[in-house]
Amino acid sequence: MDKRQLCLTIQYDGTNYKGSQRQLNATTIQSVLEAKLSKITGKKTTATFSGRTDSGVHALCQVVSFKTTSHHCPEVFLKALNALLPDDIQVMDCYCVPLNFHPRYMAKKKRYFYMIQTSPLKNPFVNRYLWHIKTPLNVEAMASASKHLVGCHDFKTFCASNTDVSSTIRELYKLDVEIIKELAFMSTQISGTFTKISAEANGFLRHMVRNITGTIVDVGKGKLQPSNIVEILQARNRQLAGQTAPSKGLFLEKVYY
Amino acid sequence: MDKRQLCLTIQYDGTNYKGSQRQLNATTIQSVLEAKLSKITGKKTTATFSGRTDSGVHALCQVVSFKTTSHHCPEVFLKALNALLPDDIQVMDCYCVPLNFHPRYMAKKKRYFYMIQTSPLKNPFVNRYLWHIKTPLNVEAMASASKHLVGCHDFKTFCASNTDVSSTIRELYKLDVEIIKELAFMSTQISGTFTKISAEANGFLRHMVRNITGTIVDVGKGKLQPSNIVEILQARNRQLAGQTAPSKGLFLEKVYY
Repeated sequence: MDKRQLCLTIQYDGTNYKGSQRQLNATTIQSVLEAKLSKITGKKTTATFSGRTDSGVHALCQVVSFKTTSHHCPEVFLKALNALLPDDIQVMDCYCVPLNFHPRYMAKKKRYFYMIQTSPLKNPFVNRYLWHIKTPLNVEAMASASKHLVGCHDFKTFCASNTDVSSTIRELYKLDVEIIKELAFMSTQISGTFTKISAEANGFLRHMVRNITGTIVDVGKGKLQPSNIVEILQARNRQLAGQTAPSKGLFLEKVYY
Repeated sequence: MDKRQLCLTIQYDGTNYKGSQRQLNATTIQSVLEAKLSKITGKKTTATFSGRTDSGVHALCQVVSFKTTSHHCPEVFLKALNALLPDDIQVMDCYCVPLNFHPRYMAKKKRYFYMIQTSPLKNPFVNRYLWHIKTPLNVEAMASASKHLVGCHDFKTFCASNTDVSSTIRELYKLDVEIIKELAFMSTQISGTFTKISAEANGFLRHMVRNITGTIVDVGKGKLQPSNIVEILQARNRQLAGQTAPSKGLFLEKVYY
């Protein structure tokens, strides 16, 4: 059979993985997925991701493609992969795409969200999926700060310092800070207030959402004024941004083509 | 200081524990909690639970008491315990109770619930907290079957065979089977249908909720008729009940005094 390309949309709980990208001597989403794909096709099969997610980051909708000469139809791949994959990585959809499709180069836009719980008490069931902060945050100030980052900017300030990229300019289409009044676990309300930061851009630099979140949280704590964000962005200096928010609160929500 | 008794309400994700009860060479909720209590009081401190939960079972509201001569106030215990305990065991409340209070003997009623997802696809984020079944269930038949179990009965059929109890008679006040139309994870809807089985009784035998659930699910699958439940209950024979439902879908919801 001729070579053809299939596309997967996958979900994963990143807690137990050293990120999405294949690495030597580390269990990653890619290494686990490629092992199962190779088992099904009977040949070494490599997977291409829409982008890398860091160690501990989750995905509700990651897009992955692979090329194969296997004759299995998409439905067979879907079922076989889900039977072989661990419970914390699952395939939601599988379909054929043209051979020239590329999940990373052709992505027009991505959306991430970051979840924060402010409450005196941690919740044992969702603590893997959010940043727990004990003291209340000024969400209005956070929302006001976020407005300064929307648009086409050099986001060097919010980029991990050890990154090697040709350009740190990205267009941030949306950066919404909203209060989620009620969050439930198994239909039972979780105590506290929840703040969701949603970011859409044509691309994200390494640690960009987590560094923006850490800086906006400093605004929410009153350590920074919303307007300080402008200087911080313009300085193009990682030292001026806040802490990198923990990876466990970050979700890749959607990739647009 | 004189000896006094304090009471805790705790939540735990049971995934990583060999049940609630202290055991040799196994990490249990009790062993972890007692280690932290002993650290805070400076003396070996034992904890008494409202009842045992099995390996992998979760609790939204477990009641635990301990006696101590420590002078710390409840608020200090709450904060110190939560700082020392792992994220998957947390204390929600701490308060003084009379020395003669006993969390197990004085419990009047307990409520458990069991969560089932029916969907072709597993969800990586909530799969730790429910029983995933691929094919749809006849929930109406399940609800009808459950009605036969409400009341004061000998529940020997639904009791783990290796249990040593003086009586297998219990009063089941409530056994509700309901469809949860929408279940969300981080405000994002999870695909599939969710069936919640809620059970209230003056006490539960070992594996009782899980064995009842397994049997009711057989009704939902059409393997049994709702009316078969009557014979199964009356036979007082574990062999006639369905499989023991997986522990991960079971939650201790509330203890009444």
